[in-house]
Amino acid sequence: MSYITDDKLAIFGSAGAIGSNMVQSALSLGLTPNVSMFDPFDKGNEGAAEEIYHCAFPGARVTWTSSAAEALEGASYLISSGGAPRKEGMTREDLLKGNAEIAAQLGRDIKQHAPGLKFGVVIFNPADITGLVALVNSGLAPSKISTLAALDSTRLQTALAQHFNVAQDEVTDCRTYGGHGEMMAVFASTARVQGRPLSELIGTDELSTDAWEEIKGRVRQGGKRIIQLRGRSSFQSPSHQSLMMIKAVMDGKGYDWPCGAFVHSPGDGFENILMAMESKLTREGLAWEMPHGTDDELAALRASYEHVTKLRDETIEMGLLPPLSDWANVNPNLYGR
Amino acid sequence: MSYITDDKLAIFGSAGAIGSNMVQSALSLGLTPNVSMFDPFDKGNEGAAEEIYHCAFPGARVTWTSSAAEALEGASYLISSGGAPRKEGMTREDLLKGNAEIAAQLGRDIKQHAPGLKFGVVIFNPADITGLVALVNSGLAPSKISTLAALDSTRLQTALAQHFNVAQDEVTDCRTYGGHGEMMAVFASTARVQGRPLSELIGTDELSTDAWEEIKGRVRQGGKRIIQLRGRSSFQSPSHQSLMMIKAVMDGKGYDWPCGAFVHSPGDGFENILMAMESKLTREGLAWEMPHGTDDELAALRASYEHVTKLRDETIEMGLLPPLSDWANVNPNLYGR
Repeated sequence: MSYITDDKLAIFGSAGAIGSNMVQSALSLGLTPNVSMFDPFDKGNEGAAEEIYHCAFPGARVTWTSSAAEALEGASYLISSGGAPRKEGMTREDLLKGNAEIAAQLGRDIKQHAPGLKFGVVIFNPADITGLVALVNSGLAPSKISTLAALDSTRLQTALAQHFNVAQDEVTDCRTYGGHGEMMAVFASTARVQGRPLSELIGTDELSTDAWEEIKGRVRQGGKRIIQLRGRSSFQSPSHQSLMMIKAVMDGKGYDWPCGAFVHSPGDGFENILMAMESKLTREGLAWEMPHGTDDELAALRASYEHVTKLRDETIEMGLLPPLSDWANVNPNLYGR
Repeated sequence: MSYITDDKLAIFGSAGAIGSNMVQSALSLGLTPNVSMFDPFDKGNEGAAEEIYHCAFPGARVTWTSSAAEALEGASYLISSGGAPRKEGMTREDLLKGNAEIAAQLGRDIKQHAPGLKFGVVIFNPADITGLVALVNSGLAPSKISTLAALDSTRLQTALAQHFNVAQDEVTDCRTYGGHGEMMAVFASTARVQGRPLSELIGTDELSTDAWEEIKGRVRQGGKRIIQLRGRSSFQSPSHQSLMMIKAVMDGKGYDWPCGAFVHSPGDGFENILMAMESKLTREGLAWEMPHGTDDELAALRASYEHVTKLRDETIEMGLLPPLSDWANVNPNLYGR
């Protein structure tokens, strides 16, 4: 058993389905033997840790704690799935408020206990907002904090592979950008099926316009479909793909999918937002690029940006993010390049 | 992403917590991209498969089916976690009967659809019996079918590491043999803590006799403790360790823990039983050896053997296993060496 690094990886929410899967998968994928499990729910966290101990990964040094400070002390990497799930009777605003508060605390904890963090991924919902709130409060450069945005694109790849009845990785360069969920911008012009541009297939006998609309709908509803089938939210794919993001920064070997990036580029018309963009992950962290697409696709990205902007402004109004004019003071690294 | 082999691995019970974890972990551990998911519960199985697709493992070719024949066709490797869990109001006999029937069908399915199976691991409870029933019905040599027996030993390793406050893998050669559960035989004489024989530590200030008895109790109750802590049965450690058994046969690089083995060695006083023994896993499958231990330990192993023998005889009386005299006819490879 060999590991890429001995750097400490903190996993927040480790008593939960996603978090406990992440601890096991981080070890199975050979990322690092040095894993700290944080969860406020001590009993479940101990149980999850015991399961990992019974796996008996050679060389593993896994600890568990209900102290965020202890978990973050000396951590180089972090994934947080530690938000509260949406419960019956909870409005969207309730969820936003609760999880934005958790994200703000996470950011402050990073600032205090892990200012040397090399890379962190925030994956609890709504991730476009929780990632942004954590970043602003963390004091870190935008290259150091990202959100999981791959699943919309891997769901598009899955749906196209099923439609064309080809191996999944014969469908390449699937891309969705912008906000996560209903308002995502699905880019058809990048994708290829066995090397053939998807945009040349749409509207033909091989993929009617209706079938393509249906596929896009399935991608947007991908998370809901898992709940319908399994009776629970997806947890394996968010775990795996967020670890692959960490792996890419650990080993510098690249990452295949869009990532959530802090975007402030007035020239491009995007300001003070965190959303899925074309991305590169290197040992230095995250760098985003403007997506290439058709006019319609870029218009869809703009619509998605505007949707996330509204959510961000709501979050500011609720007092869970400082006013935009204060961001540079709260986080002096936010606008540096 | 590279895999050890392209051979087909069938995972039975893939809609469940253990099975769906196994599919993900088989890919994360790089065993094979060629995985077949079998579960009679179509909807949950599709949901579990979709999660795996959304992980987007490069090169993976994962299929799902509710046909055992389809899943086994051409399979070289198999893990079955596909038993029924014990439900409220169910007696131990109800559980035994239901799962022994599932194991008998599994054995017949192997005989019909996967006679070239290289190695299969049966992990649903009571595994000493379900593994035996599957083996007798499969027509395979005993080297080709095993059960998961490692967790008792990894739990012993965990408990000792916690007691001595040392890294887990500084506790070596932890061994429990015989039947799984309450009647297991815990061997102290093999284990070492930072190189020091455990048997020399027991009864000293470092590990009082009482503390050792308490540790053995914790190991025997290890599964129940996970349920108390997590509110659910262990699923990550059984998944991981059964995959490590498969990996050892795939890559020939060895396996660290006892395995369930069909033992028929009248000279040693053990006949027609499947239980945890000292084991070697190679590309040829499983070979067991007599454990070394003190007289007390070997007496405990004998008591455990007698306990499993009673369970086996109950299974025969219930008509779920043929009479012993018929075994050689039902499986002509059972006694060949």
